[in-house]
Amino acid sequence: MLKDADTGFIDHLRGLLPDRTVRAVEPRYLEEPRGRWPGQAGAVVAPASVDEVSMVLRACNDAGVAVVPYGGGTGLVGGQVAQAGPVPVLLSLERMTKIRAVHPEENVIEVEAGTILQDVHTAAEAVDRLYPLSIASKGSARIGGLLATNAGGVNVLRYGNARDLCLGLEVVLADGRIWNGLSRLRKDNTGYDLRNLMIGSEGTLGVITAASLKLAPRPAGEGTALMVVESPAAALSLLALARDRMGEGISAFELMHRMGLDFLAETLPDIRQPFGAPPEWFVLVDVGLAAGLDPAEALEALFADAFERGLVSDGVIAQSQAQRHEMWELREQIPEANRRVGSISSHDISLPMGRVAEFIEKGGPALGRLGTFRINCFGHLGDGNLHYNVFPPKGRSKNEFQNLRDEIKTCVHDLVNAMGGSVSAEHGIGRLKVDDLERYGDPVKLEIMRGIKAQFDPRGILNPGAVLRAAD
Amino acid sequence: MLKDADTGFIDHLRGLLPDRTVRAVEPRYLEEPRGRWPGQAGAVVAPASVDEVSMVLRACNDAGVAVVPYGGGTGLVGGQVAQAGPVPVLLSLERMTKIRAVHPEENVIEVEAGTILQDVHTAAEAVDRLYPLSIASKGSARIGGLLATNAGGVNVLRYGNARDLCLGLEVVLADGRIWNGLSRLRKDNTGYDLRNLMIGSEGTLGVITAASLKLAPRPAGEGTALMVVESPAAALSLLALARDRMGEGISAFELMHRMGLDFLAETLPDIRQPFGAPPEWFVLVDVGLAAGLDPAEALEALFADAFERGLVSDGVIAQSQAQRHEMWELREQIPEANRRVGSISSHDISLPMGRVAEFIEKGGPALGRLGTFRINCFGHLGDGNLHYNVFPPKGRSKNEFQNLRDEIKTCVHDLVNAMGGSVSAEHGIGRLKVDDLERYGDPVKLEIMRGIKAQFDPRGILNPGAVLRAAD
Repeated sequence: MLKDADTGFIDHLRGLLPDRTVRAVEPRYLEEPRGRWPGQAGAVVAPASVDEVSMVLRACNDAGVAVVPYGGGTGLVGGQVAQAGPVPVLLSLERMTKIRAVHPEENVIEVEAGTILQDVHTAAEAVDRLYPLSIASKGSARIGGLLATNAGGVNVLRYGNARDLCLGLEVVLADGRIWNGLSRLRKDNTGYDLRNLMIGSEGTLGVITAASLKLAPRPAGEGTALMVVESPAAALSLLALARDRMGEGISAFELMHRMGLDFLAETLPDIRQPFGAPPEWFVLVDVGLAAGLDPAEALEALFADAFERGLVSDGVIAQSQAQRHEMWELREQIPEANRRVGSISSHDISLPMGRVAEFIEKGGPALGRLGTFRINCFGHLGDGNLHYNVFPPKGRSKNEFQNLRDEIKTCVHDLVNAMGGSVSAEHGIGRLKVDDLERYGDPVKLEIMRGIKAQFDPRGILNPGAVLRAAD
Repeated sequence: MLKDADTGFIDHLRGLLPDRTVRAVEPRYLEEPRGRWPGQAGAVVAPASVDEVSMVLRACNDAGVAVVPYGGGTGLVGGQVAQAGPVPVLLSLERMTKIRAVHPEENVIEVEAGTILQDVHTAAEAVDRLYPLSIASKGSARIGGLLATNAGGVNVLRYGNARDLCLGLEVVLADGRIWNGLSRLRKDNTGYDLRNLMIGSEGTLGVITAASLKLAPRPAGEGTALMVVESPAAALSLLALARDRMGEGISAFELMHRMGLDFLAETLPDIRQPFGAPPEWFVLVDVGLAAGLDPAEALEALFADAFERGLVSDGVIAQSQAQRHEMWELREQIPEANRRVGSISSHDISLPMGRVAEFIEKGGPALGRLGTFRINCFGHLGDGNLHYNVFPPKGRSKNEFQNLRDEIKTCVHDLVNAMGGSVSAEHGIGRLKVDDLERYGDPVKLEIMRGIKAQFDPRGILNPGAVLRAAD
């Protein structure tokens, strides 16, 4: 049974910690990007060191007060906002932003969990390296949150997700114990893999306070193209062809639908449309190649080969960095256009690669049985990861369709599940998808997860209600 | 308190399972490759399906009888041989060798846990793909064991270890429950990462019965070179240069010492020596490049660049597949030469890449204080993983130095640990390194591991004594 973080407890915390560590709760801490779930908190606690994090957790655990770990607040599934249950302490890592060490010769950087993603990019670039994890909210997302949610983004195809880019962690457990797993070893087979257990556990098993991250050499040359494909199936064949030709040189392979161009034209008319007549389907191909290869030439050769095979019908190959940037801008502004149009229901799904095309074929008719909608389907095709978002017909508002939202979600998720897919590819479970996990998750997996949670956090203070239903 | 797998229990099992599932214990099941620890078993049980594995585990768990999961028997740390404690059942996956599905367009293969590594290679090649995991014992090692021990090998630099090459698992838990996690999704953020918890747990948390594995496109062109370097530090600089030039195109980067050539000349004289005068240090560089690049030319350009920088002084670039094969043969026969010479103590260690050279500099003098030895230091430099093996002086036998073995091991491991390295880079803990894990492991990590073990296997039947000390 948890207790509220009331004035008495907050005063107690204040007494334990240095001045200015315990703070008032500004409203921004209780909002999330889509404005759906208002949160609650008794205080924001912003420790400056792992030892202070340990003191906070020990105090909360002793008192039975809930803790919501807080990074950049950019999560899309409500993992960072507790809207119900006992009032928690909000534990913000915002003051732990030190870059502890950079080892360019090892391709490793060691940072505190509050470091903003963009700052990791900058530090890597300063030593001619790349930290490949990249998402739209890179200017505010923090490393601790990115690891806690195993963030994905546009470069997963080549470099993997947050999990794959992490070598070691420093973690404070619910009772304040500190696990020092801050290794920078590439190989270490000494015992169970606690690092990966922590990564993706969304703050329910421990609080990440620092991490050593993999860097990558910067490709000798980079290039980008947009190519028009007949269908999602043709896009997958194009991807296979591209990988046969350039192997790991394919950095990103993003599918887009005409609806995305329509939404951009409607809401962000300053963005230049790349094609005279908007194609039904097209892809953005991004490559980073070894010395000796010209990226634009390699993309042209790929296009010629694909054209001969009937996979592509039109294309644009960037001839400058400015053009590359413009193509990426197109892709990266689609979520903003979506936001402005206003979706009834958004889905972050993944499928076995070989079934993506089939899913797209079946999804439209399945939703058609519920009503008339616009679907913007786009995303990281190279990972089988689609953002499959459902919008009202033109001229109507999402608010008119709120009553259909659950049905739409269930329709999409049931289809995904029946095809061996996942109802959360990269955003996590948070509080939004706890029901989905119970509905679609393997029951034995859920039993094991509950057991692990009970072992790591017997009083249930860590982000209660996220991932797993809270005990009460 | 566990009970022996006595005649009564074996008869009970025989009654539960189809004919020929319960078998007599041939001596080969009780030996391990280095001939050090004889094992014991009441019976070999070889189920043909996941349901039969489940029946075996449920029966053993109910009766409190230990189970040692058994793959190809090639592990080097005694994880597959129980030499003490109650007599266990040996659960062999040797009959579960089905390749359940191959998805070339997804780069995925789904296999049962008893499939031999070489057979996975063959199945991948049949669809023009690569399963990159490769180790010397590929002709007998089985996928279940490779995953249970998170095997490494020569291609980790480019493709990662067994963990990185696995998408999903089917696992039977101690009490017979089956976790179906056989996903082939590239992205799936629905709950805790049980897959990685199972991988590397060495059969102490569950029995892997099937896995979906990542395949890779085959590089358009491959090439290999041997290059003579001044020192391990120069080798690391050469690696950085190679990766700057060819990125992920570097598939393997293996360091070798003159001692390896001496041992080959001494014990396997038919193997052609690559250099007129054996160099002190040299590396094998293997590349797999995209279409449009000639691997031999790329290696030549690398050599020229490195020569200009003073990193290399001599080299041979393979001009044919036969020459590539010969270079790899040289590398792969070093363990056999070591075996014939007979080491006093062998160490599978890793270090932060930037400290490898320093370790090699300090290791010799540190051991010199214990006596006069020959050191053969070689391995996967690109992963910071050295096989650092200590041999008697020429003409003497390892048996004369048995009394120094523990001291030698402690000397090496203490130095590794002091430099932030690992005392088991790729072979695991097994029964050989339980003491080391207790000595060098983070104490909080050990507490967590014991808690996880107790949760997954409350009666302690799964591979007792491996990784963690057995309860009794």
